[in-house]
Amino acid sequence: MRIDIITVLPELLKSPFEASILKRAIEANLVEVHFHNLRDYTSDRYKSIDDTQFGGGAGMVMMIEPIDKCISALKEQRHYDEVIYMTPDGETLKQGIANQLSLKENIIILCGHYKGVDQRVRDHFITREISIGDYVLSGGELGAAVLCDAIIRLIPGVLGNETSALTDSFQDNLLAPPIYTKPREYKGWKVPELLFSGNFPKIEKWREEQAYLRTKERRPDLLED
Amino acid sequence: MRIDIITVLPELLKSPFEASILKRAIEANLVEVHFHNLRDYTSDRYKSIDDTQFGGGAGMVMMIEPIDKCISALKEQRHYDEVIYMTPDGETLKQGIANQLSLKENIIILCGHYKGVDQRVRDHFITREISIGDYVLSGGELGAAVLCDAIIRLIPGVLGNETSALTDSFQDNLLAPPIYTKPREYKGWKVPELLFSGNFPKIEKWREEQAYLRTKERRPDLLED
Repeated sequence: MRIDIITVLPELLKSPFEASILKRAIEANLVEVHFHNLRDYTSDRYKSIDDTQFGGGAGMVMMIEPIDKCISALKEQRHYDEVIYMTPDGETLKQGIANQLSLKENIIILCGHYKGVDQRVRDHFITREISIGDYVLSGGELGAAVLCDAIIRLIPGVLGNETSALTDSFQDNLLAPPIYTKPREYKGWKVPELLFSGNFPKIEKWREEQAYLRTKERRPDLLED
Repeated sequence: MRIDIITVLPELLKSPFEASILKRAIEANLVEVHFHNLRDYTSDRYKSIDDTQFGGGAGMVMMIEPIDKCISALKEQRHYDEVIYMTPDGETLKQGIANQLSLKENIIILCGHYKGVDQRVRDHFITREISIGDYVLSGGELGAAVLCDAIIRLIPGVLGNETSALTDSFQDNLLAPPIYTKPREYKGWKVPELLFSGNFPKIEKWREEQAYLRTKERRPDLLED
């Protein structure tokens, strides 16, 4: 899989891709991630990538031309399955979308910044708009990092133990059950005895019940789907 | 405002805080952000912060002791309004929660990693559990960065123009209207004429209509609240 991220702040995106699972996935050639600085696609001497809004109003708007040039240059080199724009008014990211996108070959992710991009970019170049949640961030960069993390960890071989991702919250519309590790007792707080019983079918049943109870209490909406 | 982030991967978190709005807010002393490496609070020679699950199962669990030590050390120094745990089964982050948290004095954010933390940490030290959305990430670090960005940009003085945050998507349960900038025409794609009319009340009305239409089409659920 190849991911091309278009941004005005490539430096903001660096560290999440240089640590932990994303780093290992990149080093193992399970995924290629490329950053493209929009300023490299400007044509004026000031390397302008944004300008004020037509019609007035606070906040700068990202211009269409550098974005068009960057996307076009990428498309000349290979076919892209999706050109995604990260924006709070996009489709809300859910685990199912991450599962789906993890099967793609090549995707472009455009990060909005400032007030967002010129609407014509969205009308003519974007195939999918994704929001990571109902809140506003200072730019699409963190959203892109979140989307990449959610996708990349699902690529086979990225997580050490493949069952690990399948028992995560949301994969079966249930939240994960409580988990415990050493010590058995800490400041008087004990681990449930059952977990030491060695009776694995019973432990499994307890976990399923706990997952169901937690979901019912915290996220009854997930049980309705 | 002061934010203390507890993590096993402080290096993953670096770049988002060293660029753009977060960097400027920190430099202007509008917010202090401190990273705490959990390994500095371990007591064994291997600096272990995780161990296998009691009862079996894939994935490592973060141990209670280093987390207790780190949180206790911080609490000895000042009062904290919230000790937040980033976890996919927490309360889903919405703009209203970000607004609320941006008014706090001191908060701790604990990043889960691997399979998550020992349930006793959640039972005894955490005052609030937050999820940035219905998807699983390889750790809570990106969630913490997202939460910090959503909060910090709301602190007065952080955004250059204060009206900018108030016209964002979600602040009034409406998505933002389309925006445009130069050039007026690009490859035959034109900016709506009205935006050049100079008739600002009419432009304002058009924007409100567009915001409403977009919300109705994309997120009718927001209009029901």
